[in-house]
Amino acid sequence: MSFSCGATLEPGFRLDSRSARCCIKVEGGDRLARARLVASSSTLPSPPRRLRRPGPQAHTLRFDLISGEPQVERREARDPMAAPEGQWVLMATGRSPTNIAVIKYWGKRDEALILPVNDSISVTLDPDHLSATTTIAVSPSFPSDRMWLNGKEISLSGGRFQSCLREIRKRACEFEDEKKGIKIKKEDWEKLHVHIASYNNFPTAAGLASSAAGFACLVFTLGKLMNVKEDYGELSSIARQGSGSACRSLYGGFVKWCMGKKDDGSDSLAMQLADETHWNDLVIIIAVVSSKQKETSSTSGMRDSVETSPFLQYRAQTVVPSRVLKMEEAIKNQDFESFAKLTCADSNQFHAVCLDTSPPIFYMNDTSHRIISLVEKWNHSEGTPQVAYTFDAGPNAVLISRNRKTAALLLQKLLYYFPPQDKDLSSYLVGDKSILGDAGLHSIEDVDALPAPPEMKIPDQKFKGDVSYFICSRLGAGPKVVADENQALIDSVTRLPKGV
Amino acid sequence: MSFSCGATLEPGFRLDSRSARCCIKVEGGDRLARARLVASSSTLPSPPRRLRRPGPQAHTLRFDLISGEPQVERREARDPMAAPEGQWVLMATGRSPTNIAVIKYWGKRDEALILPVNDSISVTLDPDHLSATTTIAVSPSFPSDRMWLNGKEISLSGGRFQSCLREIRKRACEFEDEKKGIKIKKEDWEKLHVHIASYNNFPTAAGLASSAAGFACLVFTLGKLMNVKEDYGELSSIARQGSGSACRSLYGGFVKWCMGKKDDGSDSLAMQLADETHWNDLVIIIAVVSSKQKETSSTSGMRDSVETSPFLQYRAQTVVPSRVLKMEEAIKNQDFESFAKLTCADSNQFHAVCLDTSPPIFYMNDTSHRIISLVEKWNHSEGTPQVAYTFDAGPNAVLISRNRKTAALLLQKLLYYFPPQDKDLSSYLVGDKSILGDAGLHSIEDVDALPAPPEMKIPDQKFKGDVSYFICSRLGAGPKVVADENQALIDSVTRLPKGV
Repeated sequence: MSFSCGATLEPGFRLDSRSARCCIKVEGGDRLARARLVASSSTLPSPPRRLRRPGPQAHTLRFDLISGEPQVERREARDPMAAPEGQWVLMATGRSPTNIAVIKYWGKRDEALILPVNDSISVTLDPDHLSATTTIAVSPSFPSDRMWLNGKEISLSGGRFQSCLREIRKRACEFEDEKKGIKIKKEDWEKLHVHIASYNNFPTAAGLASSAAGFACLVFTLGKLMNVKEDYGELSSIARQGSGSACRSLYGGFVKWCMGKKDDGSDSLAMQLADETHWNDLVIIIAVVSSKQKETSSTSGMRDSVETSPFLQYRAQTVVPSRVLKMEEAIKNQDFESFAKLTCADSNQFHAVCLDTSPPIFYMNDTSHRIISLVEKWNHSEGTPQVAYTFDAGPNAVLISRNRKTAALLLQKLLYYFPPQDKDLSSYLVGDKSILGDAGLHSIEDVDALPAPPEMKIPDQKFKGDVSYFICSRLGAGPKVVADENQALIDSVTRLPKGV
Repeated sequence: MSFSCGATLEPGFRLDSRSARCCIKVEGGDRLARARLVASSSTLPSPPRRLRRPGPQAHTLRFDLISGEPQVERREARDPMAAPEGQWVLMATGRSPTNIAVIKYWGKRDEALILPVNDSISVTLDPDHLSATTTIAVSPSFPSDRMWLNGKEISLSGGRFQSCLREIRKRACEFEDEKKGIKIKKEDWEKLHVHIASYNNFPTAAGLASSAAGFACLVFTLGKLMNVKEDYGELSSIARQGSGSACRSLYGGFVKWCMGKKDDGSDSLAMQLADETHWNDLVIIIAVVSSKQKETSSTSGMRDSVETSPFLQYRAQTVVPSRVLKMEEAIKNQDFESFAKLTCADSNQFHAVCLDTSPPIFYMNDTSHRIISLVEKWNHSEGTPQVAYTFDAGPNAVLISRNRKTAALLLQKLLYYFPPQDKDLSSYLVGDKSILGDAGLHSIEDVDALPAPPEMKIPDQKFKGDVSYFICSRLGAGPKVVADENQALIDSVTRLPKGV
């Protein structure tokens, strides 16, 4: 794990793969400002280590590879807070996975603190395929906090962003380098403003938990930048205040969001049930379903459900608690049959609550229904589940196959019914494209030659164009610092998102 | 109310509009057999009245206009049961409405007796537009019971048909005409076989309660033919054993099916809450939605729900009882706002239970969802409901408008989004076509010129072809005898369905 910076390397400094050390050279104002980051590997911030190679005439902030704690070095030994604006910029880039709930979160008992009415369980998806990347820059030259999502500036005035910024700033740690006479007090962090650039490598607001990845990444990266010492559980409860399901993106593998009981929400946080290596047979195929329908946001949707659905509280109080226990057991034992049955039933029940809402909420469409039918009929014909399906607040299907072989068979069935509109197969399946080879699909001709799934009763009907594309992925790890400075989203010179 | 016969009038006999008397001239065997029916008007069977005009050389069965009781007259004064086979045929034709539940029935507590898990409430639809017509012929010449549905012979071996036939035969009344020395004993009815021809004036198994109308009509017509003296409540509990919701089609207007408590189901029957004149502002528009999907039958669907949906029992025990009380109150007070809110919520909750079933059941499709969205947005923009929607076990929308003016406005909105595929407007709206004039839609050009509903956010998108046709109707009366012998579905000569 490492921090990154979004700037050129200072001549004479090398990127050390062990320490992932890098520098930001900022040419703003009349002096050369420089920050050096020495990233932490995997642990949480701990006390600073001493500076290694300070640059000349520079403020150098560094993050230790082990501790992740930032250190500011100023050759003039001046308080950085007192430095002329525009002198230096410090950046960190993090990447956080998205997650998909297999026991769903739907309904808050506290709107402001985002406290749920029930526990939920999710799997974390491989960030290589589905993640948010966020670069946060901090500089005395910034007059205000600003944020860009996928290149477009968005308002940070919303309560959810403010909660995350406030809670992280509250926990930002004092920095002191006695040798250099530098001291950033806790309250100094409150005065520093940030520029945040975030990017999702998958469609935003398409029901693929983009806000979960986004807020997890925001909190994680802010925490790294501001040298927050709290553990990931505590960070998850801050991310929760950005977007409920974001708390589950603080961990890889299988994650449980414990609803908690306290009024202040301090015990409503995520915990890891098992990491991504525990059950690594699972292969995930996501069908990104074409939709012209305007979606109901999950925030307003679940508020409406809490207010109007007679089923919601019954589900939360009576149905979910036993399902959570069963799901934990299924995950522990790698019991795919139980895992799949619980996953499908809970997805359907969540959508049933949406339908029981007034006015009713429809996230799934006819294509979603067809995919469910395909999976149900196949599972039925095999006598035991081969694939689990789950749908979040949108029509996209997340299909979890028991292993790679079933995933390849699933892909054949999916592509039979939902062939690509054009001849380009490689852009129709993204992520782990090697599954195409496993399924024997090397060209569009192979797709055209696919036989109808024998278990389906209307095998001749096809639905070209109803799926935009597929993503093949797997379970993945939790948030990571991005070491490669070229991947930073903010330009160290303009201090704005690259390309803006 | 009157009985009909499906044969030519005997020369010299006239159709008396007061008594609706008609004769069946049957040319089978070596003699002329004739049955005369004198139909009852609206009351239940009561003791027979004396014969008026016996035909020569004929067995004449007649039903009194008041009592509806059949009388067999044989000039030879022979026991009709002893007559050579093929001598006579007696026919009766009934017409029963369909109904649409506004508080839904979904789930049985007894599969064999068809006892529901909750009360339900329905509105009876005008049989002019949506009904089943059934002709039942009885003759000593029939070696077995046979049935044709919409011209196609179907098996009567199913338990549901057998239950209805058995229960009605059990209650068939002795017939005696001392003067003529005729006596049909109760047990004689058991020996007589029937030919049944039934026809729905709307799509079968399209989620428009065709089995409800069909079984109600079967039981009603059998009851009339066999001189059953039980009241409509008792008949409804027999119809219930054919198809649960059929019991509600024994009455017009607003009908409640009381689930009952007894194990034998004898108290699970329908009662009328108010007749069709009580609240006659209501206008019903049905969108018959195009669907290529195979439907899940409601019988197997509700069995799956009972077995697998955690929501079903909660709905039955906790949600429905209070909704039934509120719905009765809304109907009594003609409180459209409450009526509409309860109707929409209960339709959605029924479909939520379907979705909560494993495997999930989808009756509504994208077109159904679009119609709901259209109604919800309009109701919201008006501040108070203009239209209620409800969907049975299929994608068709049943839309109940508070009055004719709102129905005309609704039709404009529906036709804006779902214009006909061809230029023929008059076949695109069936039933009460005068609503087209009220909506100012005299030609396809008027439809093309319709403005987008201002309350909709995606006004420019249209869905031509997604609705097959619309039906405009209203609340209607309960079952009736069809007096016009030309409407009988069985040919008195061939004793088979006409055209078969």
